[in-house]
Amino acid sequence: MGGNHFGTIFTVTTFGESHGPALGCVVEGCPAGIPLGIDEISQELQRRRPGGGGPATTRIEADTPELLSGVFEGKTLGTPIAIMVRNTNQRSGDYDALKDVYRPGHADWTWEAKYGFRDPRGGGRSSGRETLGRVAAGAVAKAFLGEYGITIQAWTSSVAGIPVPDPEELGFDLEEREKNPLRIPHRETAAQVLGVIEQIRSAGDSAGGTVSCMVHGLPPGLGEPVFGKLDARLAGAMLSLGAAKGIEFGAGFAAAAGRGSTQNDQPIPASLQGLPREVPGVRYQSNQAGGMLGGISTGMPLEFRVAFKPVPSITKPQKTLDRRGLVRELIIQGRHDVCMVPRVVPVVEAMTALVLADLMLLHRGDRIGT
Amino acid sequence: MGGNHFGTIFTVTTFGESHGPALGCVVEGCPAGIPLGIDEISQELQRRRPGGGGPATTRIEADTPELLSGVFEGKTLGTPIAIMVRNTNQRSGDYDALKDVYRPGHADWTWEAKYGFRDPRGGGRSSGRETLGRVAAGAVAKAFLGEYGITIQAWTSSVAGIPVPDPEELGFDLEEREKNPLRIPHRETAAQVLGVIEQIRSAGDSAGGTVSCMVHGLPPGLGEPVFGKLDARLAGAMLSLGAAKGIEFGAGFAAAAGRGSTQNDQPIPASLQGLPREVPGVRYQSNQAGGMLGGISTGMPLEFRVAFKPVPSITKPQKTLDRRGLVRELIIQGRHDVCMVPRVVPVVEAMTALVLADLMLLHRGDRIGT
Amino acid sequence: MGGNHFGTIFTVTTFGESHGPALGCVVEGCPAGIPLGIDEISQELQRRRPGGGGPATTRIEADTPELLSGVFEGKTLGTPIAIMVRNTNQRSGDYDALKDVYRPGHADWTWEAKYGFRDPRGGGRSSGRETLGRVAAGAVAKAFLGEYGITIQAWTSSVAGIPVPDPEELGFDLEEREKNPLRIPHRETAAQVLGVIEQIRSAGDSAGGTVSCMVHGLPPGLGEPVFGKLDARLAGAMLSLGAAKGIEFGAGFAAAAGRGSTQNDQPIPASLQGLPREVPGVRYQSNQAGGMLGGISTGMPLEFRVAFKPVPSITKPQKTLDRRGLVRELIIQGRHDVCMVPRVVPVVEAMTALVLADLMLLHRGDRIGT
Amino acid sequence: MGGNHFGTIFTVTTFGESHGPALGCVVEGCPAGIPLGIDEISQELQRRRPGGGGPATTRIEADTPELLSGVFEGKTLGTPIAIMVRNTNQRSGDYDALKDVYRPGHADWTWEAKYGFRDPRGGGRSSGRETLGRVAAGAVAKAFLGEYGITIQAWTSSVAGIPVPDPEELGFDLEEREKNPLRIPHRETAAQVLGVIEQIRSAGDSAGGTVSCMVHGLPPGLGEPVFGKLDARLAGAMLSLGAAKGIEFGAGFAAAAGRGSTQNDQPIPASLQGLPREVPGVRYQSNQAGGMLGGISTGMPLEFRVAFKPVPSITKPQKTLDRRGLVRELIIQGRHDVCMVPRVVPVVEAMTALVLADLMLLHRGDRIGT
Repeated sequence: MGGNHFGTIFTVTTFGESHGPALGCVVEGCPAGIPLGIDEISQELQRRRPGGGGPATTRIEADTPELLSGVFEGKTLGTPIAIMVRNTNQRSGDYDALKDVYRPGHADWTWEAKYGFRDPRGGGRSSGRETLGRVAAGAVAKAFLGEYGITIQAWTSSVAGIPVPDPEELGFDLEEREKNPLRIPHRETAAQVLGVIEQIRSAGDSAGGTVSCMVHGLPPGLGEPVFGKLDARLAGAMLSLGAAKGIEFGAGFAAAAGRGSTQNDQPIPASLQGLPREVPGVRYQSNQAGGMLGGISTGMPLEFRVAFKPVPSITKPQKTLDRRGLVRELIIQGRHDVCMVPRVVPVVEAMTALVLADLMLLHRGDRIGT
Repeated sequence: MGGNHFGTIFTVTTFGESHGPALGCVVEGCPAGIPLGIDEISQELQRRRPGGGGPATTRIEADTPELLSGVFEGKTLGTPIAIMVRNTNQRSGDYDALKDVYRPGHADWTWEAKYGFRDPRGGGRSSGRETLGRVAAGAVAKAFLGEYGITIQAWTSSVAGIPVPDPEELGFDLEEREKNPLRIPHRETAAQVLGVIEQIRSAGDSAGGTVSCMVHGLPPGLGEPVFGKLDARLAGAMLSLGAAKGIEFGAGFAAAAGRGSTQNDQPIPASLQGLPREVPGVRYQSNQAGGMLGGISTGMPLEFRVAFKPVPSITKPQKTLDRRGLVRELIIQGRHDVCMVPRVVPVVEAMTALVLADLMLLHRGDRIGT
Repeated sequence: MGGNHFGTIFTVTTFGESHGPALGCVVEGCPAGIPLGIDEISQELQRRRPGGGGPATTRIEADTPELLSGVFEGKTLGTPIAIMVRNTNQRSGDYDALKDVYRPGHADWTWEAKYGFRDPRGGGRSSGRETLGRVAAGAVAKAFLGEYGITIQAWTSSVAGIPVPDPEELGFDLEEREKNPLRIPHRETAAQVLGVIEQIRSAGDSAGGTVSCMVHGLPPGLGEPVFGKLDARLAGAMLSLGAAKGIEFGAGFAAAAGRGSTQNDQPIPASLQGLPREVPGVRYQSNQAGGMLGGISTGMPLEFRVAFKPVPSITKPQKTLDRRGLVRELIIQGRHDVCMVPRVVPVVEAMTALVLADLMLLHRGDRIGT
Repeated sequence: MGGNHFGTIFTVTTFGESHGPALGCVVEGCPAGIPLGIDEISQELQRRRPGGGGPATTRIEADTPELLSGVFEGKTLGTPIAIMVRNTNQRSGDYDALKDVYRPGHADWTWEAKYGFRDPRGGGRSSGRETLGRVAAGAVAKAFLGEYGITIQAWTSSVAGIPVPDPEELGFDLEEREKNPLRIPHRETAAQVLGVIEQIRSAGDSAGGTVSCMVHGLPPGLGEPVFGKLDARLAGAMLSLGAAKGIEFGAGFAAAAGRGSTQNDQPIPASLQGLPREVPGVRYQSNQAGGMLGGISTGMPLEFRVAFKPVPSITKPQKTLDRRGLVRELIIQGRHDVCMVPRVVPVVEAMTALVLADLMLLHRGDRIGT
């Protein structure tokens, strides 16, 4: 139940510091009998890997996962699935200059205030590199959800204030999304954003953006009232990502300015074949609710959007404090993203998968006879 | 660890349906020795009570709490604190017409899809009345936090798209906030909004809005990396409120459109006397981060904003489905808020208090020797 | 996850002090659709009620439960089930003499060492009266298990060193068990023990004993490796009872003196119709393992035995300390059991039911497709 | 919260199968600032290592631990501590003959009934080898407890029915305990038992025994009422060990046959300097309670005893079933302990350390101002 543990039944514990020997995760509670191989895990890790060009950091890591336990003859055993990724490219020297300085926008000082000391190499455990364990665990969760036909798709929906056209309206172009380093599913916007990012890089600055996520195939009835609601669980999951500053579901903040008569989605009859239980056929004419009512899935697509602040490591000179309380001018060097939003896309998917896998298992306990 | 349980050490379990015999909570893990009386609890419950005039429902409930355990001679014992509020005004008849109909925007169908059947009286447990238990528990958490000088203040920061001026800039007028039924800490805006609400009521419609919250007095170092971050815990808490559709911390969604050079708050020297542990004196020249970095409190005020959709119960005719899958015209009667945002203000405070009380206790385990 | 919370999915939180306003519980995670009424709960509470004659305390309490939430039209809703029992016979005056004295064998001093102060009336929350909430919750768990044909039967298996003949060999006489105040399922032994207890009472002393428990109808496959094993969960549950000093499963301590060749139960073919999943037909020629292997149920009857120390409240004069550290002679008055083992029988059943209900729900998550 | 996760704040998750790539653990919630090196971990692992001669298995494993995270410059960071041990000597071939057979006394069939299939190599995760992760985690917990002067000592207290003299009375000979392969702290008894074990080995049979454990230096006030009592937590921890069949605290089962007048330990004045909080000076003239009252530590030594059944793998021919339900004669080969009790001694210590470390941290939340 510590801060490094996530979930109730389908759970994950992650471990590792940015420049320590290894990072990884232990997934517990994954049901037995699910086909799982190292390739699925490796593939997801490659999606978040640095070095993909474009706005990404130039640190090169192979990020090769090793499956330590929990799988036998290609299927999950029902036992903990431990996955480890060794750090191979630990240029700690880059960080020596930073070890006595609190970088603006980073967690250096807050970790020190909390624990009394910290691992200054690359931010230690507060590094975005910690998400490796999340993505590896998310790959396991995706394999589980795949058995139910549930699919999760996230994409970069804005960068530096430039919005990406709604992929639902354009027809979602998943291939395009993975073809450009920005994970923007729209070629023209991607090209425009790349240009802006280069300007920002030249100015020694950085950019933020938003990631949108859509889930198809969810059965109705997921979510644990009242504190474990579907949106509550997802919000907790997303805001646990380092640079996340906000989340909204369906119409989100716009709903707060709307009227009941326009925000209520109208139920319509539907035939819901293939559901895990017999439910009346209800769908909705619109989806302002984002796929949930009262924190329980409606069976409509799940939709949410997460805001990420700009990368705090910028090459422009900044003023800050050192450990003695003295003001220092700081010029950050080393390998850093200008905009990490594209690399966060697979992490958002992974956290979504972890939440949904857990709720799918909890769902099994909803009723007698199920 | 069920969905009705919240927290890790300082925890709460709530119970009760809208029209059942009683609602309430059990608070566990509250340290011994804290002065606590029924009056503090009662006072918070009165703040969320219906019948306050203005936009609120006209259902009249006394909402008198009873303290069943955990307090002896005016101080907490360290044992579970059970608090119960009886339902006295259960006009179930109002809801007979609704028992076979899925109200748009409500959780009727999703609860039925989940559990196979539901208590249709006033939404059963999906009713906003469930928050009674949260507010009672929050009063206990506030008493605990009060021992450390931590104060929590929420207010209505927009209604139906009308923004409320920033109370920090105006000088926060707490008295004004509690003087008007909208909990808007600015008299002129309150008057304007009341007018708009009356128009919406006349039109048979409803409104949403936002609640902002600010916490002063937090020590730096609160928050449990990596999944139990301060913002992650708060986001999970806030999105567990029935009509919440989004949350943002500090600069929030605006941060996603900004640059690193402007979003990074600059650390400045400060003398931080009275902290629970020796920390270097760090404050920040601005607070775009909303009081946290890496999900750990910085010692600056905690700031966030929550979006709530309009009340789904409107008196305008709506089309919906019944349990047989037939389309029905629905005209909702009974007692309903036009805008429940003002009544959510104490609930937002309560959930904030519960998160912070838990993190304050977890904080005690951060280091050897503390 | 506090100390007053038990279980993972099917959970209970208990509350209440011996002489406070009320005691009770909140059961969370009970599936929807289970028939449940106040009578089932009341009946179990009556079994642990004082005043049944024989060795029991003479405090008279009606112990009438009230169902506050979670049940609608006679069926569980899937929401928290809160049950409350008011204390009506609070002769606190009896305890005034004890408030500054640490009674030998009681938790007076340890609670004070822990919390800094305590409710001295009847032991406060350390009173056996706390088990009211457990028994009420256990009644809910029994109703759930009843849906699967699982039955739990505990009995007094020894008192003051006098063993009770094995009911399996005699043919278990459930009626006889409930006919005598000792819950000994063998009339002659019951008569003998009653005589011994009267002698002990006359001497101003008290007696301990053991409770045995047997569960029939468990499917194979229950228990969560590796820390949540069936026996681990039951051991934790039983040792959480105030006076419990030991537990053994199957052959228990005798197994430690045996040989592998005689302790191994031999698997034999069996037709296991009616199981929830297709399992090969395995039963065992003996049951030294007590119904589990590797902490997972085998499908054989579950068997264990719990040791309880004598009631620490005796009327014989004792030497002890008071809060100032001075030696005092103590003569305890008030209403006390000579031997509380018979009243513990329904509590052992309740805790067993709570463990099994939780494991039955966790079991649903074992495999894909189940 | 899965079955492979243990604890509330100071927690451990273990992973790994007997013949998989690796076993290990992730320790979460260990406070920052504790000196910790690989040597302390390695040393504890060596104590449970096979190949020590005497009754142990002849499988040879180096069991070299690797520290993957959570320690920086020789001190704990407050982040998860991941420890891994690779399996190097995986003679899976030995187990081919067993993969379709349910070994008597083993968990083969119960795991298959639970998960649908299993890793048959060496029992997979049901192997005693799983305790590697527990022992590694226990080493971390011991380092934490060492900061408070708390020491844990377990020993073999009986084998095959032969009792070991009480080390308290003899003067506990820790050196002698570690000098003989049986971990019997009494040379003459050790010699006698070794002879008996050789006879049992010759007969193709195996033996069980008991492990006793004593903890010194515990402050009073540890243990979380009512379900998380000190004895409840320890009982759950010990019965989670594969072959454990019972536990007793202090006088244990003998207490059940005693009288209140002799079982009550008499409080006596004492000066308890150096405690973490000011408590009145209370000690006890005897320790039949085993160091706890009401499940909370008294400050007296903690004492308990755990019973372990004989090793189920014996070389004598046995009858059993195969997966098709056919009776088979089974002759087990491979590398097995005749009596694994001595190797369990460090595991009992490890689990004790994990329980106590967690309770020490929870203890920090008992009162305001602490």
